[in-house]
Amino acid sequence: MVETPENDVTKSAPKRTPSTGSARPQRRHRPREETRALLLAAAADLAIERTRPDAPSPHNPLADVRMSDVLVEVNRRDPDGRKLTTGAFYQIWPDQAAFQLELMRHVMDKIATPGARQIEALAFRLVADGEAPEEIFRQISEADFRWTSASPELFLALGLGALAPVDMVRDAQAGANERYIEETDHLLSVLLRYARRRLRPDRTMEDLIWAVEALSVGYLLRSRSHPDIPDRTDDSGWSALASAYYGVIQAFSEPIPDEREDSDPPS
Amino acid sequence: MVETPENDVTKSAPKRTPSTGSARPQRRHRPREETRALLLAAAADLAIERTRPDAPSPHNPLADVRMSDVLVEVNRRDPDGRKLTTGAFYQIWPDQAAFQLELMRHVMDKIATPGARQIEALAFRLVADGEAPEEIFRQISEADFRWTSASPELFLALGLGALAPVDMVRDAQAGANERYIEETDHLLSVLLRYARRRLRPDRTMEDLIWAVEALSVGYLLRSRSHPDIPDRTDDSGWSALASAYYGVIQAFSEPIPDEREDSDPPS
Repeated sequence: MVETPENDVTKSAPKRTPSTGSARPQRRHRPREETRALLLAAAADLAIERTRPDAPSPHNPLADVRMSDVLVEVNRRDPDGRKLTTGAFYQIWPDQAAFQLELMRHVMDKIATPGARQIEALAFRLVADGEAPEEIFRQISEADFRWTSASPELFLALGLGALAPVDMVRDAQAGANERYIEETDHLLSVLLRYARRRLRPDRTMEDLIWAVEALSVGYLLRSRSHPDIPDRTDDSGWSALASAYYGVIQAFSEPIPDEREDSDPPS
Repeated sequence: MVETPENDVTKSAPKRTPSTGSARPQRRHRPREETRALLLAAAADLAIERTRPDAPSPHNPLADVRMSDVLVEVNRRDPDGRKLTTGAFYQIWPDQAAFQLELMRHVMDKIATPGARQIEALAFRLVADGEAPEEIFRQISEADFRWTSASPELFLALGLGALAPVDMVRDAQAGANERYIEETDHLLSVLLRYARRRLRPDRTMEDLIWAVEALSVGYLLRSRSHPDIPDRTDDSGWSALASAYYGVIQAFSEPIPDEREDSDPPS
Protein backbone atom coordinates (compact mmCIF):
# COMPACT_ATOMS: atom_id res chain seq x y z
CA MET A 1 0.00 0.00 0.00
CA VAL A 2 2.89 2.34 0.74
CA GLU A 3 5.60 3.33 -1.73
CA THR A 4 8.23 4.07 0.91
CA PRO A 5 9.96 0.85 1.97
CA GLU A 6 9.57 -0.20 5.58
CA ASN A 7 12.32 1.37 7.63
CA ASP A 8 13.23 -0.91 10.49
CA VAL A 9 15.24 1.77 12.24
CA THR A 10 12.39 4.26 12.61
CA LYS A 11 9.84 1.48 13.04
CA SER A 12 11.56 -0.08 16.02
CA ALA A 13 12.75 3.16 17.54
CA PRO A 14 11.47 3.48 21.09
CA LYS A 15 9.36 6.49 22.03
CA ARG A 16 11.16 9.67 23.08
CA THR A 17 14.40 8.72 21.35
CA PRO A 18 15.83 12.08 20.22
CA SER A 19 16.19 12.31 16.47
CA THR A 20 19.77 12.41 15.26
CA GLY A 21 20.97 15.20 13.03
CA SER A 22 17.69 17.09 13.22
CA ALA A 23 17.66 20.81 12.42
CA ARG A 24 15.35 21.25 15.43
CA PRO A 25 16.94 19.02 18.07
CA GLN A 26 14.21 19.87 20.63
CA ARG A 27 11.60 18.20 18.42
CA ARG A 28 11.73 14.45 18.04
CA HIS A 29 10.90 12.44 14.91
CA ARG A 30 7.87 10.29 15.51
CA PRO A 31 8.35 6.67 14.50
CA ARG A 32 6.38 5.92 11.38
CA GLU A 33 3.95 3.50 13.08
CA GLU A 34 3.24 6.04 15.77
CA THR A 35 2.43 8.68 13.17
CA ARG A 36 0.16 6.23 11.39
CA ALA A 37 -1.68 5.43 14.60
CA LEU A 38 -2.01 9.11 15.51
CA LEU A 39 -3.48 9.99 12.14
CA LEU A 40 -5.90 7.05 12.14
CA ALA A 41 -7.11 7.77 15.67
CA ALA A 42 -7.66 11.47 14.94
CA ALA A 43 -9.46 10.69 11.69
CA ALA A 44 -11.70 8.11 13.37
CA ASP A 45 -12.52 10.61 16.11
CA LEU A 46 -13.48 13.23 13.54
CA ALA A 47 -15.78 10.76 11.78
CA ILE A 48 -17.25 9.49 15.09
CA GLU A 49 -17.84 13.09 16.22
CA ARG A 50 -20.32 13.38 13.37
CA THR A 51 -22.40 10.43 14.63
CA ARG A 52 -23.06 12.10 17.99
CA PRO A 53 -26.55 13.44 18.71
CA ASP A 54 -25.27 17.00 19.15
CA ALA A 55 -22.82 17.02 16.25
CA PRO A 56 -22.63 20.41 14.53
CA SER A 57 -22.34 18.73 11.11
CA PRO A 58 -23.79 15.24 11.51
CA HIS A 59 -23.34 12.42 9.03
CA ASN A 60 -26.37 12.47 6.83
CA PRO A 61 -26.26 10.44 3.64
CA LEU A 62 -29.14 12.51 2.27
CA ALA A 63 -27.49 15.87 2.88
CA ASP A 64 -25.77 15.81 -0.48
CA VAL A 65 -28.89 15.02 -2.45
CA ARG A 66 -29.03 18.51 -3.92
CA MET A 67 -32.28 20.04 -4.95
CA SER A 68 -30.79 21.07 -8.30
CA ASP A 69 -29.86 17.45 -9.05
CA VAL A 70 -33.35 16.29 -8.11
CA LEU A 71 -34.92 18.86 -10.45
CA VAL A 72 -32.64 17.83 -13.30
CA GLU A 73 -33.60 14.19 -12.71
CA VAL A 74 -37.36 14.88 -12.61
CA ASN A 75 -37.21 17.01 -15.74
CA ARG A 76 -35.11 14.41 -17.54
CA ARG A 77 -37.76 11.77 -16.83
CA ASP A 78 -40.58 13.88 -18.22
CA PRO A 79 -39.03 15.91 -21.04
CA ASP A 80 -42.44 16.95 -22.38
CA GLY A 81 -43.88 18.10 -19.07
CA ARG A 82 -43.73 21.58 -17.68
CA LYS A 83 -40.22 22.03 -16.33
CA LEU A 84 -40.03 22.02 -12.55
CA THR A 85 -38.07 24.83 -10.97
CA THR A 86 -36.72 25.56 -7.53
CA GLY A 87 -39.90 27.59 -7.07
CA ALA A 88 -42.01 24.43 -7.30
CA PHE A 89 -39.71 22.85 -4.75
CA TYR A 90 -40.06 25.64 -2.21
CA GLN A 91 -43.82 25.73 -2.66
CA ILE A 92 -43.82 22.24 -1.14
CA TRP A 93 -41.01 22.35 1.42
CA PRO A 94 -39.97 25.49 3.29
CA ASP A 95 -36.30 24.46 3.25
CA GLN A 96 -33.84 21.68 2.53
CA ALA A 97 -34.14 20.32 6.07
CA ALA A 98 -37.89 19.80 5.70
CA PHE A 99 -37.30 18.12 2.36
CA GLN A 100 -34.64 15.83 3.81
CA LEU A 101 -36.87 14.75 6.67
CA GLU A 102 -39.65 13.87 4.26
CA LEU A 103 -37.19 12.09 1.97
CA MET A 104 -35.98 10.04 4.92
CA ARG A 105 -39.56 9.21 5.87
CA HIS A 106 -40.20 8.18 2.26
CA VAL A 107 -37.20 5.82 2.33
CA MET A 108 -38.14 4.35 5.73
CA ASP A 109 -41.74 3.81 4.60
CA LYS A 110 -40.53 1.91 1.55
CA ILE A 111 -38.76 -0.74 3.60
CA ALA A 112 -41.32 -0.95 6.42
CA THR A 113 -43.41 -3.84 5.11
CA PRO A 114 -42.45 -4.71 1.55
CA GLY A 115 -44.41 -7.72 0.37
CA ALA A 116 -46.69 -7.67 3.43
CA ARG A 117 -49.75 -8.51 1.36
CA GLN A 118 -47.99 -11.35 -0.45
CA ILE A 119 -46.57 -12.78 2.77
CA GLU A 120 -49.98 -12.69 4.44
CA ALA A 121 -51.44 -14.44 1.36
CA LEU A 122 -48.71 -17.08 1.51
CA ALA A 123 -49.35 -17.71 5.21
CA PHE A 124 -53.10 -17.92 4.62
CA ARG A 125 -52.63 -20.47 1.84
CA LEU A 126 -50.24 -22.60 3.92
CA VAL A 127 -52.61 -22.56 6.89
CA ALA A 128 -55.52 -23.53 4.66
CA ASP A 129 -53.43 -26.42 3.31
CA GLY A 130 -52.86 -27.60 6.87
CA GLU A 131 -49.07 -27.19 6.54
CA ALA A 132 -47.06 -27.80 9.73
CA PRO A 133 -46.68 -24.59 11.79
CA GLU A 134 -42.87 -24.64 11.85
CA GLU A 135 -42.81 -25.01 8.07
CA ILE A 136 -45.06 -21.95 7.79
CA PHE A 137 -42.73 -19.95 10.07
CA ARG A 138 -39.81 -21.07 7.88
CA GLN A 139 -41.50 -19.99 4.69
CA ILE A 140 -42.72 -16.62 5.93
CA SER A 141 -39.37 -15.72 7.50
CA GLU A 142 -37.60 -16.50 4.23
CA ALA A 143 -40.22 -14.70 2.13
CA ASP A 144 -40.00 -11.63 4.36
CA PHE A 145 -36.22 -11.64 4.05
CA ARG A 146 -36.37 -11.94 0.26
CA TRP A 147 -38.89 -9.10 -0.07
CA THR A 148 -36.84 -6.78 2.11
CA SER A 149 -33.60 -7.80 0.37
CA ALA A 150 -35.16 -6.84 -2.94
CA SER A 151 -36.00 -3.30 -1.79
CA PRO A 152 -33.61 -0.90 -3.49
CA GLU A 153 -33.97 1.41 -0.48
CA LEU A 154 -32.71 -1.21 1.99
CA PHE A 155 -29.08 -0.28 2.58
CA LEU A 156 -29.75 3.43 2.31
CA ALA A 157 -32.39 3.05 5.03
CA LEU A 158 -30.03 1.02 7.25
CA GLY A 159 -27.25 3.55 6.72
CA LEU A 160 -29.57 6.41 7.60
CA GLY A 161 -30.65 4.55 10.74
CA ALA A 162 -27.01 4.27 11.80
CA LEU A 163 -25.75 7.72 10.85
CA ALA A 164 -28.43 10.36 10.42
CA PRO A 165 -29.28 12.53 13.42
CA VAL A 166 -31.18 10.30 15.80
CA ASP A 167 -34.16 12.62 16.35
CA MET A 168 -34.62 12.76 12.59
CA VAL A 169 -34.41 8.95 12.38
CA ARG A 170 -36.98 8.50 15.13
CA ASP A 171 -39.32 10.99 13.51
CA ALA A 172 -38.87 9.57 10.00
CA GLN A 173 -39.43 5.98 11.18
CA ALA A 174 -42.47 6.61 13.39
CA GLY A 175 -45.10 5.84 10.76
CA ALA A 176 -43.16 2.94 9.29
CA ASN A 177 -42.66 1.35 12.73
CA GLU A 178 -46.35 1.65 13.54
CA ARG A 179 -47.37 -0.02 10.28
CA TYR A 180 -44.70 -2.70 10.69
CA ILE A 181 -45.91 -3.58 14.17
CA GLU A 182 -49.54 -3.60 13.17
CA GLU A 183 -49.07 -5.92 10.19
CA THR A 184 -46.58 -8.23 11.90
CA ASP A 185 -48.77 -8.41 15.01
CA HIS A 186 -51.71 -9.64 12.96
CA LEU A 187 -49.65 -12.24 11.09
CA LEU A 188 -47.79 -13.62 14.12
CA SER A 189 -50.92 -13.68 16.31
CA VAL A 190 -52.75 -15.88 13.82
CA LEU A 191 -49.74 -18.14 13.28
CA LEU A 192 -49.05 -18.58 16.99
CA ARG A 193 -52.68 -19.61 17.52
CA TYR A 194 -52.43 -22.01 14.59
CA ALA A 195 -49.24 -23.44 16.14
CA ARG A 196 -51.15 -23.81 19.44
CA ARG A 197 -48.69 -21.46 21.07
CA ARG A 198 -49.15 -18.16 22.89
CA LEU A 199 -46.89 -15.38 24.06
CA ARG A 200 -45.19 -16.08 27.34
CA PRO A 201 -47.21 -14.21 29.97
CA ASP A 202 -44.33 -11.80 30.74
CA ARG A 203 -43.63 -10.95 27.09
CA THR A 204 -45.55 -8.72 24.73
CA MET A 205 -46.14 -9.06 21.01
CA GLU A 206 -43.92 -5.99 20.55
CA ASP A 207 -41.05 -7.78 22.32
CA LEU A 208 -41.36 -10.64 19.83
CA ILE A 209 -41.76 -8.35 16.81
CA TRP A 210 -38.67 -6.29 17.63
CA ALA A 211 -36.67 -9.47 18.25
CA VAL A 212 -37.43 -10.91 14.81
CA GLU A 213 -36.89 -7.45 13.32
CA ALA A 214 -33.46 -7.22 14.97
CA LEU A 215 -32.52 -10.64 13.67
CA SER A 216 -33.63 -9.78 10.13
CA VAL A 217 -31.88 -6.41 10.09
CA GLY A 218 -28.63 -7.96 11.29
CA TYR A 219 -28.76 -10.68 8.65
CA LEU A 220 -29.70 -8.14 5.96
CA LEU A 221 -26.70 -6.00 6.83
CA ARG A 222 -24.43 -9.06 6.85
CA SER A 223 -25.86 -10.20 3.50
CA ARG A 224 -24.49 -7.07 1.84
CA SER A 225 -20.91 -8.32 2.11
CA HIS A 226 -21.67 -12.02 2.68
CA PRO A 227 -24.90 -12.96 0.87
CA ASP A 228 -24.43 -16.67 1.60
CA ILE A 229 -24.50 -16.38 5.43
CA PRO A 230 -28.27 -16.04 6.02
CA ASP A 231 -29.02 -18.61 3.31
CA ARG A 232 -26.89 -21.53 4.55
CA THR A 233 -29.22 -24.51 4.88
CA ASP A 234 -29.34 -27.49 7.19
CA ASP A 235 -30.17 -31.02 6.06
CA SER A 236 -33.90 -30.23 6.07
CA GLY A 237 -33.43 -27.20 3.82
CA TRP A 238 -33.89 -24.63 6.57
CA SER A 239 -31.86 -21.46 6.01
CA ALA A 240 -29.81 -20.17 8.95
CA LEU A 241 -32.11 -17.17 8.97
CA ALA A 242 -35.24 -19.34 9.31
CA SER A 243 -33.69 -21.52 12.05
CA ALA A 244 -32.73 -18.46 14.08
CA TYR A 245 -36.14 -16.85 13.45
CA TYR A 246 -37.96 -19.94 14.70
CA GLY A 247 -35.68 -20.05 17.73
CA VAL A 248 -36.72 -16.49 18.58
CA ILE A 249 -40.41 -17.32 18.09
CA GLN A 250 -40.00 -20.18 20.56
CA ALA A 251 -38.07 -18.06 23.04
CA PHE A 252 -40.93 -15.55 23.39
CA SER A 253 -43.82 -18.02 23.26
CA GLU A 254 -44.97 -21.22 24.94
CA PRO A 255 -47.33 -24.05 24.04
CA ILE A 256 -50.97 -23.54 24.94
CA PRO A 257 -51.70 -26.23 27.53
CA ASP A 258 -53.99 -28.88 26.18
CA GLU A 259 -57.17 -28.84 28.25
CA ARG A 260 -57.67 -32.54 27.71
CA GLU A 261 -54.33 -33.34 29.32
CA ASP A 262 -54.40 -31.85 32.76
CA SER A 263 -51.01 -33.33 33.60
CA ASP A 264 -49.28 -31.14 30.91
CA PRO A 265 -47.02 -28.57 32.57
CA PRO A 266 -47.96 -24.99 31.61
CA SER A 267 -44.66 -24.13 29.89
CA MET B 1 -44.20 21.73 7.48
CA VAL B 2 -45.16 23.77 4.42
CA GLU B 3 -45.97 27.47 4.51
CA THR B 4 -48.26 27.38 1.47
CA PRO B 5 -51.75 26.32 2.57
CA GLU B 6 -53.11 23.09 1.19
CA ASN B 7 -54.88 23.80 -2.06
CA ASP B 8 -57.77 21.40 -2.47
CA VAL B 9 -58.35 22.37 -6.08
CA THR B 10 -54.88 21.35 -7.30
CA LYS B 11 -54.68 18.47 -4.83
CA SER B 12 -57.85 16.77 -6.04
CA ALA B 13 -57.39 17.61 -9.70
CA PRO B 14 -57.37 14.42 -11.74
CA LYS B 15 -54.33 13.66 -13.89
CA ARG B 16 -54.22 15.14 -17.38
CA THR B 17 -56.81 17.81 -16.60
CA PRO B 18 -55.68 20.75 -18.70
CA SER B 19 -54.78 23.73 -16.59
CA THR B 20 -57.10 26.70 -17.00
CA GLY B 21 -55.76 30.10 -17.90
CA SER B 22 -52.23 28.82 -18.50
CA ALA B 23 -49.90 30.80 -20.74
CA ARG B 24 -48.77 27.49 -22.27
CA PRO B 25 -52.00 25.55 -22.74
CA GLN B 26 -50.15 22.49 -24.11
CA ARG B 27 -48.39 22.03 -20.74
CA ARG B 28 -50.49 20.97 -17.80
CA HIS B 29 -50.00 22.01 -14.18
CA ARG B 30 -49.04 19.01 -12.08
CA PRO B 31 -51.16 18.61 -8.96
CA ARG B 32 -49.14 19.49 -5.91
CA GLU B 33 -49.17 15.95 -4.45
CA GLU B 34 -47.99 14.56 -7.75
CA THR B 35 -45.09 17.01 -7.83
CA ARG B 36 -44.21 16.10 -4.27
CA ALA B 37 -44.20 12.39 -5.12
CA LEU B 38 -42.12 12.96 -8.27
CA LEU B 39 -39.49 14.93 -6.39
CA LEU B 40 -39.29 12.44 -3.53
CA ALA B 41 -39.01 9.46 -5.86
CA ALA B 42 -36.29 11.11 -7.94
CA ALA B 43 -34.36 12.15 -4.84
CA ALA B 44 -34.59 8.67 -3.32
CA ASP B 45 -33.37 7.16 -6.58
CA LEU B 46 -30.38 9.52 -6.64
CA ALA B 47 -29.49 8.53 -3.05
CA ILE B 48 -30.07 4.81 -3.73
CA GLU B 49 -27.91 5.03 -6.88
CA ARG B 50 -25.02 5.82 -4.60
CA THR B 51 -25.46 2.59 -2.60
CA ARG B 52 -25.03 0.40 -5.70
CA PRO B 53 -21.80 -1.58 -6.09
CA ASP B 54 -20.90 0.20 -9.34
CA ALA B 55 -21.90 3.71 -8.29
CA PRO B 56 -19.60 6.37 -9.76
CA SER B 57 -19.76 8.38 -6.50
CA PRO B 58 -20.74 5.94 -3.77
CA HIS B 59 -21.93 6.93 -0.33
CA ASN B 60 -18.92 6.82 1.89
CA PRO B 61 -19.20 8.42 5.31
CA LEU B 62 -15.40 8.59 5.49
CA ALA B 63 -14.96 10.37 2.16
CA ASP B 64 -15.31 13.78 3.77
CA VAL B 65 -12.78 13.16 6.50
CA ARG B 66 -10.29 15.50 4.92
CA MET B 67 -6.61 15.01 5.38
CA SER B 68 -6.16 18.68 6.25
CA ASP B 69 -8.70 18.35 9.10
CA VAL B 70 -6.93 15.26 10.38
CA LEU B 71 -3.58 17.06 10.41
CA VAL B 72 -5.08 20.03 12.26
CA GLU B 73 -6.57 17.65 14.82
CA VAL B 74 -3.31 15.73 15.37
CA ASN B 75 -1.28 18.92 15.69
CA ARG B 76 -3.85 20.42 18.07
CA ARG B 77 -3.52 17.38 20.34
CA ASP B 78 0.24 17.62 20.50
CA PRO B 79 1.07 21.31 20.32
CA ASP B 80 4.68 20.78 21.41
CA GLY B 81 5.43 18.01 18.93
CA ARG B 82 6.87 18.42 15.48
CA LYS B 83 4.01 19.59 13.29
CA LEU B 84 2.75 16.93 10.92
CA THR B 85 2.35 17.97 7.31
CA THR B 86 0.71 16.49 4.25
CA GLY B 87 4.18 15.16 3.42
CA ALA B 88 4.08 12.91 6.51
CA PHE B 89 0.66 11.76 5.41
CA TYR B 90 1.74 10.76 1.93
CA GLN B 91 4.81 8.99 3.26
CA ILE B 92 2.39 6.53 4.86
CA TRP B 93 -0.48 6.31 2.37
CA PRO B 94 -0.04 6.73 -1.38
CA ASP B 95 -3.43 8.43 -1.69
CA GLN B 96 -6.69 9.29 0.05
CA ALA B 97 -8.29 6.01 -1.05
CA ALA B 98 -5.58 3.96 0.66
CA PHE B 99 -5.98 6.08 3.78
CA GLN B 100 -9.77 5.65 3.77
CA LEU B 101 -9.51 1.89 3.46
CA GLU B 102 -7.16 1.74 6.41
CA LEU B 103 -9.37 4.10 8.39
CA MET B 104 -12.35 1.85 7.71
CA ARG B 105 -10.34 -1.20 8.80
CA HIS B 106 -9.35 0.68 11.96
CA VAL B 107 -13.02 1.42 12.75
CA MET B 108 -14.14 -2.15 12.00
CA ASP B 109 -11.35 -3.58 14.15
CA LYS B 110 -12.44 -1.40 17.06
CA ILE B 111 -15.93 -2.92 17.20
CA ALA B 112 -14.91 -6.50 16.37
CA THR B 113 -14.57 -7.83 19.91
CA PRO B 114 -14.73 -5.04 22.46
CA GLY B 115 -14.59 -6.44 25.96
CA ALA B 116 -13.71 -9.94 24.72
CA ARG B 117 -11.23 -10.49 27.53
CA GLN B 118 -13.64 -9.25 30.19
CA ILE B 119 -16.51 -11.35 28.82
CA GLU B 120 -14.34 -14.46 28.76
CA ALA B 121 -13.29 -13.71 32.34
CA LEU B 122 -16.93 -13.29 33.37
CA ALA B 123 -17.90 -16.59 31.74
CA PHE B 124 -14.96 -18.36 33.38
CA ARG B 125 -15.94 -17.04 36.81
CA LEU B 126 -19.60 -18.04 36.37
CA VAL B 127 -18.63 -21.53 35.22
CA ALA B 128 -16.30 -21.91 38.17
CA ASP B 129 -19.14 -20.85 40.47
CA GLY B 130 -21.31 -23.59 38.98
CA GLU B 131 -23.88 -21.05 37.74
CA ALA B 132 -26.73 -22.46 35.62
CA PRO B 133 -25.79 -22.53 31.91
CA GLU B 134 -28.77 -20.44 30.75
CA GLU B 135 -27.90 -17.79 33.34
CA ILE B 136 -24.35 -17.67 31.94
CA PHE B 137 -25.70 -17.24 28.40
CA ARG B 138 -27.92 -14.44 29.68
CA GLN B 139 -25.05 -12.63 31.37
CA ILE B 140 -22.58 -12.95 28.51
CA SER B 141 -25.11 -11.85 25.90
CA GLU B 142 -25.94 -8.77 27.95
CA ALA B 143 -22.29 -8.03 28.72
CA ASP B 144 -21.38 -8.35 25.03
CA PHE B 145 -24.19 -5.99 24.10
CA ARG B 146 -23.12 -3.43 26.71
CA TRP B 147 -19.48 -3.52 25.60
CA THR B 148 -20.38 -3.06 21.96
CA SER B 149 -22.92 -0.34 22.80
CA ALA B 150 -20.19 1.56 24.60
CA SER B 151 -17.88 1.60 21.56
CA PRO B 152 -17.83 5.12 20.16
CA GLU B 153 -17.16 3.60 16.71
CA LEU B 154 -20.34 1.50 16.74
CA PHE B 155 -22.78 3.49 14.60
CA LEU B 156 -20.08 4.73 12.27
CA ALA B 157 -19.07 1.10 11.66
CA LEU B 158 -22.71 0.04 11.07
CA GLY B 159 -23.27 2.97 8.72
CA LEU B 160 -20.11 2.12 6.79
CA GLY B 161 -21.27 -1.48 6.54
CA ALA B 162 -24.55 -0.32 5.01
CA LEU B 163 -23.29 2.42 2.71
CA ALA B 164 -19.60 2.24 1.84
CA PRO B 165 -18.60 0.40 -1.35
CA VAL B 166 -19.15 -3.28 -0.61
CA ASP B 167 -15.70 -4.48 -1.76
CA MET B 168 -14.14 -1.96 0.57
CA VAL B 169 -16.38 -3.14 3.44
CA ARG B 170 -15.50 -6.77 2.84
CA ASP B 171 -11.80 -5.95 2.72
CA ALA B 172 -11.91 -3.68 5.78
CA GLN B 173 -13.87 -6.24 7.84
CA ALA B 174 -11.83 -9.33 6.93
CA GLY B 175 -9.46 -9.19 9.88
CA ALA B 176 -12.17 -8.14 12.33
CA ASN B 177 -14.47 -10.97 11.22
CA GLU B 178 -11.72 -13.53 11.60
CA ARG B 179 -10.92 -12.38 15.12
CA TYR B 180 -14.60 -12.19 16.04
CA ILE B 181 -15.22 -15.76 14.88
CA GLU B 182 -12.13 -17.09 16.62
CA GLU B 183 -12.93 -15.54 20.00
CA THR B 184 -16.66 -16.27 19.88
CA ASP B 185 -16.00 -19.84 18.75
CA HIS B 186 -13.84 -20.48 21.79
CA LEU B 187 -16.32 -18.96 24.23
CA LEU B 188 -19.44 -20.64 22.81
CA SER B 189 -17.73 -24.02 22.44
CA VAL B 190 -16.82 -24.10 26.11
CA LEU B 191 -20.25 -22.86 27.20
CA LEU B 192 -22.14 -25.35 25.02
CA ARG B 193 -20.10 -28.19 26.54
CA TYR B 194 -20.77 -26.83 30.01
CA ALA B 195 -24.50 -26.72 29.16
CA ARG B 196 -24.23 -30.33 27.97
CA ARG B 197 -25.26 -29.22 24.51
CA ARG B 198 -23.58 -29.56 21.12
CA LEU B 199 -24.10 -28.06 17.68
CA ARG B 200 -26.77 -29.77 15.67
CA PRO B 201 -24.95 -32.11 13.28
CA ASP B 202 -26.03 -30.11 10.20
CA ARG B 203 -25.00 -26.74 11.63
CA THR B 204 -21.55 -25.22 12.02
CA MET B 205 -20.19 -22.98 14.74
CA GLU B 206 -20.01 -20.21 12.12
CA ASP B 207 -23.76 -20.56 11.49
CA LEU B 208 -24.38 -20.02 15.19
CA ILE B 209 -21.88 -17.17 15.51
CA TRP B 210 -23.34 -15.23 12.57
CA ALA B 211 -26.85 -15.78 13.92
CA VAL B 212 -26.06 -14.24 17.31
CA GLU B 213 -24.06 -11.52 15.55
CA ALA B 214 -27.06 -10.69 13.34
CA LEU B 215 -29.34 -10.52 16.36
CA SER B 216 -26.94 -8.24 18.24
CA VAL B 217 -26.35 -5.93 15.29
CA GLY B 218 -30.09 -5.56 14.70
CA TYR B 219 -30.75 -4.76 18.36
CA LEU B 220 -27.77 -2.36 18.44
CA LEU B 221 -29.12 -0.46 15.45
CA ARG B 222 -32.61 -0.38 16.99
CA SER B 223 -31.16 0.83 20.32
CA ARG B 224 -29.95 4.02 18.64
CA SER B 225 -33.50 5.36 18.33
CA HIS B 226 -35.18 3.10 20.91
CA PRO B 227 -32.69 2.23 23.66
CA ASP B 228 -35.38 0.54 25.77
CA ILE B 229 -36.30 -2.16 23.23
CA PRO B 230 -33.38 -4.62 23.74
CA ASP B 231 -33.47 -4.04 27.51
CA ARG B 232 -37.13 -4.86 28.25
CA THR B 233 -37.12 -7.58 30.88
CA ASP B 234 -39.42 -10.47 31.67
CA ASP B 235 -40.44 -11.47 35.20
CA SER B 236 -37.12 -13.28 35.72
CA GLY B 237 -35.10 -10.21 34.75
CA TRP B 238 -34.09 -11.49 31.32
CA SER B 239 -33.70 -8.71 28.76
CA ALA B 240 -35.43 -9.20 25.40
CA LEU B 241 -31.96 -9.37 23.89
CA ALA B 242 -30.89 -12.22 26.18
CA SER B 243 -34.12 -14.17 25.63
CA ALA B 244 -33.73 -13.95 21.86
CA TYR B 245 -30.02 -14.80 22.08
CA TYR B 246 -30.73 -17.93 24.11
CA GLY B 247 -33.47 -18.89 21.64
CA VAL B 248 -30.90 -18.72 18.83
CA ILE B 249 -28.40 -20.79 20.84
CA GLN B 250 -31.05 -23.46 21.30
CA ALA B 251 -32.09 -23.35 17.65
CA PHE B 252 -28.58 -24.27 16.44
CA SER B 253 -27.71 -26.75 19.19
CA GLU B 254 -29.14 -29.86 20.83
CA PRO B 255 -28.68 -31.63 24.17
CA ILE B 256 -25.86 -34.14 24.35
CA PRO B 257 -27.59 -37.49 24.92
CA ASP B 258 -26.93 -38.80 28.38
CA GLU B 259 -25.04 -42.09 28.05
CA ARG B 260 -26.56 -43.42 31.23
CA GLU B 261 -30.08 -43.05 29.82
CA ASP B 262 -30.20 -45.10 26.65
CA SER B 263 -33.89 -44.35 26.22
CA ASP B 264 -33.17 -40.63 25.69
CA PRO B 265 -33.88 -39.61 22.09
CA PRO B 266 -30.79 -38.15 20.34
CA SER B 267 -32.29 -34.71 19.65
